[in-house]
Amino acid sequence: MKTLSQEVSTLSMQLAETFSIVDNCLEIGGISLERLAEQVGQKPFFVYSRRHIDERVNLLREHIPPQVSIHYAVKANPFVPLVHYMASKVEGVDIASASELLIALNAGVDPQDISFAGPGKNDADLKQAIAARILINVESENELHRIHAIAQTLNERARIALRVNPDYRLNSSGMRMGGGPLQFGMDVQYVKAVLGVVRDYPEYLQFEGFQIFPGSQNLNADHIIEAQHKALDLVITLARESGVMVQRFNLGGGFGVPYFEGDQELDLPKIGLSMQQLVDKAEAAMPGVEIILELGRYLVAPAGIYVTKVVERKVSHDVVYLVTEGGMNHHLAASGHLGQLIRRNYPIVIGNRVAGETVEKVNVVGPLCTPLDVLLNQGTLTVAHPGDLVAIFQSGAYGLSASPVGFLSQTQAVEILI
Amino acid sequence: MKTLSQEVSTLSMQLAETFSIVDNCLEIGGISLERLAEQVGQKPFFVYSRRHIDERVNLLREHIPPQVSIHYAVKANPFVPLVHYMASKVEGVDIASASELLIALNAGVDPQDISFAGPGKNDADLKQAIAARILINVESENELHRIHAIAQTLNERARIALRVNPDYRLNSSGMRMGGGPLQFGMDVQYVKAVLGVVRDYPEYLQFEGFQIFPGSQNLNADHIIEAQHKALDLVITLARESGVMVQRFNLGGGFGVPYFEGDQELDLPKIGLSMQQLVDKAEAAMPGVEIILELGRYLVAPAGIYVTKVVERKVSHDVVYLVTEGGMNHHLAASGHLGQLIRRNYPIVIGNRVAGETVEKVNVVGPLCTPLDVLLNQGTLTVAHPGDLVAIFQSGAYGLSASPVGFLSQTQAVEILI
Repeated sequence: MKTLSQEVSTLSMQLAETFSIVDNCLEIGGISLERLAEQVGQKPFFVYSRRHIDERVNLLREHIPPQVSIHYAVKANPFVPLVHYMASKVEGVDIASASELLIALNAGVDPQDISFAGPGKNDADLKQAIAARILINVESENELHRIHAIAQTLNERARIALRVNPDYRLNSSGMRMGGGPLQFGMDVQYVKAVLGVVRDYPEYLQFEGFQIFPGSQNLNADHIIEAQHKALDLVITLARESGVMVQRFNLGGGFGVPYFEGDQELDLPKIGLSMQQLVDKAEAAMPGVEIILELGRYLVAPAGIYVTKVVERKVSHDVVYLVTEGGMNHHLAASGHLGQLIRRNYPIVIGNRVAGETVEKVNVVGPLCTPLDVLLNQGTLTVAHPGDLVAIFQSGAYGLSASPVGFLSQTQAVEILI
Repeated sequence: MKTLSQEVSTLSMQLAETFSIVDNCLEIGGISLERLAEQVGQKPFFVYSRRHIDERVNLLREHIPPQVSIHYAVKANPFVPLVHYMASKVEGVDIASASELLIALNAGVDPQDISFAGPGKNDADLKQAIAARILINVESENELHRIHAIAQTLNERARIALRVNPDYRLNSSGMRMGGGPLQFGMDVQYVKAVLGVVRDYPEYLQFEGFQIFPGSQNLNADHIIEAQHKALDLVITLARESGVMVQRFNLGGGFGVPYFEGDQELDLPKIGLSMQQLVDKAEAAMPGVEIILELGRYLVAPAGIYVTKVVERKVSHDVVYLVTEGGMNHHLAASGHLGQLIRRNYPIVIGNRVAGETVEKVNVVGPLCTPLDVLLNQGTLTVAHPGDLVAIFQSGAYGLSASPVGFLSQTQAVEILI
């Protein structure tokens, strides 16, 4: 045991301080983590903070030009109360499945401001989308033909935008979603032919614009800026060459959040300044165009904490293990099994003993009978015992909904918005 | 496109042939895959074959000494109809959560033959287990104290076995669950003290034996044999040193199945021969001891196929993509995000065109808006089109229950047993 509380990771302590710390216990929305745990019934839970969402949206509004619409990508976190709250904060939402469509409509979002992307939409999905009169981001010529056939059946005019897979990639992205062969969108070379199909069926297909989404979880402002300008240039070229009127241009998001020690916050002021030029260029080339920034993780990740109680403290071959009630079944990303090539520790503290007098190196593991169920590998925490609450930050996006909740039929986690 | 059907992976074709192939379509339980797809309502589904389970159990019975009890580990696949079927085939079941306890009891398994392991059992879990009079595999001294306290409250005698973390590891295991620091079981050095606690409270604690589970998904018979003998030797030593009567010894399982091209089936005859010596040695040292082999994956993985329909066939930068209705949200393991360090392709065919005249290299991806959602990366399949059925073998274990079914709120998968 050491007596240097500063050995808890800097990122963890920085994130803890974005919440209140009262009597050494995290406090969210004026309620201590310990009382929250009682309130939700002593189960593992995700708590999402409205104040953090507000601050995030305000930060964006401060830096991003007012002409840019902000859309929330429901896939980041589809928890219904949270989507309802987001709906009042942003100009629109983007969905990735038919069930997310119903969530968005139930949240009162105007269908005009809902768009639907995804490489595997089936006919039933498309039918729902056309009936709801939302915008469909078309991912292939074949999908467009299916949309046309369904629109004809429904006697509706389907609202469409083309999702284009650009020839460049967004460097330093956590996940590449553009450049080179991909299942997302259509390669640039196919755009002309697809626009030809749109033009052939004006009574059933209403073209509104383009979507380009080159990558996600990017912390490099320069790369994001470069990708945004390339995307705009591509759209201007496509519009000019094909003579279409672009009403909307969704330039994706990709704004990352710091997950691991050493990660730096995205330089939002820099991106904001560049986006002013972007908006001016877009307006000059395509008057009246609406520029849409589609963000999921960036809006909600910092608002969420996953909380799970220590059940056992044990020592094996001199390694201290804290075994908690929940693990990878609730938070797959924190266990390192959602896209990470090398497992790294998420920011984490003992939520009811944030800055301990004594700290130690521990492994935090979940209750599952599998060695995959690791939440912290040799990280430094305040010395903890059964009953203490492990708190994992940056858990507001791709948390519970992206986890194998049925694995080993363990306790379900609760979600709350406060 | 090439015209050599043998380019489809050998393992895939071998596994296809364990099912019937009629008119070039897989047939399970006398029903073609195409008709099955209609029967389940055109959703992605997991189909589990009773015949395969029968054959697997029969194969085991043929090689494993009759004195050895076979237990089914519910965590491998908790689908209720399958657990009920397994319950009629094996001597007992092992559970890893309180919900699995109810599944096992509902399946009619005698509580006497149910055992409960897991590093994070909370007091509620332990209370249920003690009330149900099942065997608890104790993972630490602290857990034993909690068991004692609860047993006293309930005025029950808790049935316990000690789960021991051996000092050796099972080499070439897919997952190490013994040897070195681990959250599972107690290190050998603690066993004596824990048995002391047991002896102090005979009215509330009934000692029945030991569990040692050094690893899983192992295809090397020699390593399994070595680990089994080491485990028995350890138990004999522990029993002798502490003077306890060992009624049951669960020596784990760890028997692997071939998932990837080049993997060889486990040499079961070799293990069976060695187990005869094991049984003799155990009987000599601990007369009347019941040797339990705990298997999950090995019993059910080959019985399961995941089936998902092609929605889109698209080409991006000369790469063919088959986009299907389901993906990592139903089958995380096949997408490579459940413990694999390097993503490898699961055995897979086009289920309704198994041996195509023309084959091609393709990527098979799910419908999710994330580049993580890959089911086949540059594998060879019969040329396929929308409506065709992708079939992934070895999907009977750690499939749907180990997957993030809520991710992107996509279509739920169906499970059937035929």
